[in-house]
Amino acid sequence: MKLARYKDADGTHFGLVANDKIHRLTFDGSAQALIAAWDTMQSDCAAALEGDGQALSAVALLAPVPRPGKVFAIGLNYADHIEESGMDSPSEQIWFTKAVTSVNGPFDPILIPKVSQTVDYEAEMVAIIGKKGKNLAEEDVAGHIFGYCVGNDVTERMWQHRTPQWSLGKSFDTHAPIGPWITTADEIEDPHGLDIRCAVNGEIRQSSNTKHLVFNVWQQISQLSQAMTLEPGDLIFTGTPSGVGAAMDPMVFLQDGDVLVTEIEKLGRIEGHLTNES
Amino acid sequence: MKLARYKDADGTHFGLVANDKIHRLTFDGSAQALIAAWDTMQSDCAAALEGDGQALSAVALLAPVPRPGKVFAIGLNYADHIEESGMDSPSEQIWFTKAVTSVNGPFDPILIPKVSQTVDYEAEMVAIIGKKGKNLAEEDVAGHIFGYCVGNDVTERMWQHRTPQWSLGKSFDTHAPIGPWITTADEIEDPHGLDIRCAVNGEIRQSSNTKHLVFNVWQQISQLSQAMTLEPGDLIFTGTPSGVGAAMDPMVFLQDGDVLVTEIEKLGRIEGHLTNES
Repeated sequence: MKLARYKDADGTHFGLVANDKIHRLTFDGSAQALIAAWDTMQSDCAAALEGDGQALSAVALLAPVPRPGKVFAIGLNYADHIEESGMDSPSEQIWFTKAVTSVNGPFDPILIPKVSQTVDYEAEMVAIIGKKGKNLAEEDVAGHIFGYCVGNDVTERMWQHRTPQWSLGKSFDTHAPIGPWITTADEIEDPHGLDIRCAVNGEIRQSSNTKHLVFNVWQQISQLSQAMTLEPGDLIFTGTPSGVGAAMDPMVFLQDGDVLVTEIEKLGRIEGHLTNES
Repeated sequence: MKLARYKDADGTHFGLVANDKIHRLTFDGSAQALIAAWDTMQSDCAAALEGDGQALSAVALLAPVPRPGKVFAIGLNYADHIEESGMDSPSEQIWFTKAVTSVNGPFDPILIPKVSQTVDYEAEMVAIIGKKGKNLAEEDVAGHIFGYCVGNDVTERMWQHRTPQWSLGKSFDTHAPIGPWITTADEIEDPHGLDIRCAVNGEIRQSSNTKHLVFNVWQQISQLSQAMTLEPGDLIFTGTPSGVGAAMDPMVFLQDGDVLVTEIEKLGRIEGHLTNES
């Protein structure tokens, strides 16, 4: 199924997307609570999908998990991106975080901050945790994943690199657009075989496939769970392929008015318009 | 005032601490919601303090903000700790994060994880955000702080340093004990003049004063707010002085059964017992 959050004239709701329609789900609680209760929601889902639904084009899609508990993201996790960064291929998984206040709707403006104008894109598949877990073996990870969505690990490059720690430069408001909805894991036979693309103003800048991940999704989530309890709704950004603006010669950064499109096979497409912070 | 969360036979509550008693506050919501509503709670607080209260020793104190939105922590922010780390004094503030699932009660066990046994202590004053803010000037920061508490930025050193990014090694479950309560900012004339100490099994390992912070609290919070919207209940760990176990020769790490006490003048004392993860 495809689980979305959206806004219409009546307010903000969860809904299921099918055939360009959205079918409202009655659930009163957070996205985390809905994900945690998902196994008990199957008859509600079936009932929702039997209704007429509403044209998808008539609603505004929102971030499917607007306020996750945790947002972890892995660095240098596609061989081609490692090469363009001039770094060695890491023997260990390199993890940083994005602040929960950076989570942004799939079609919402992406802000270029007042303090620095070196904003760059990083198309990424995002895994959403479905079940609480700690010390997960790699073979048990799939059962803990709720689903996948499209994300962009938007990055303020100057702030990323002004110190050795990346998390602050990765945490600007609006810099974690996700969506357009969550495709539940049962619809994705293998998350390691999906085309991923990013375009700026229609020009393709990144084009790869999740089969090129250095550390795969099972390895990533297993490792995180050695340190911390993963919970429903936690977001894992799984890495970006080559083609970021900072690796172009000369470097090119996003500017006010640019249109950033990120697309992943089977998961959909998000589109953010770059806007100067006012 | 001193705002605590605690548990007694009736359940979990907020309360005000005065003269070794705790006075229950009636508030139904999260710590973030209570902090955001604080200006409207003054008559409730006065009424609570007029009651008899309960002996503090009869209740179990809990983390005052058990599930903050964000936990940011600054590295290398006391001159003596920079020296013992063999690092250069940073010209920029170095920020990393602790996962919200690492937040721990002031007297709860601190876990030594299965995967690594190089757990170390870092006594820190923690500032708690009171009012939402973005792009704050240093002179406006004080008005956005709700209060201060004692914290320990417990660190898994091997995981901190296995890659250049620290946030994962700082995010193990139970590794952010905070408490014993929040002392509201109006009771702390200057947060930059408080003695801070950390002891292991009664042996003083860290002893300094917050006047030695390299970047002060106003500078720290101003900088974070250039990137992200700060919100009520967000926690800012403000740095640790010298004396950590990793800087001893030979290095000494915390072990099962150790008792870790962290104390700050005017803010109180927390005590965690080290326990192997089961």
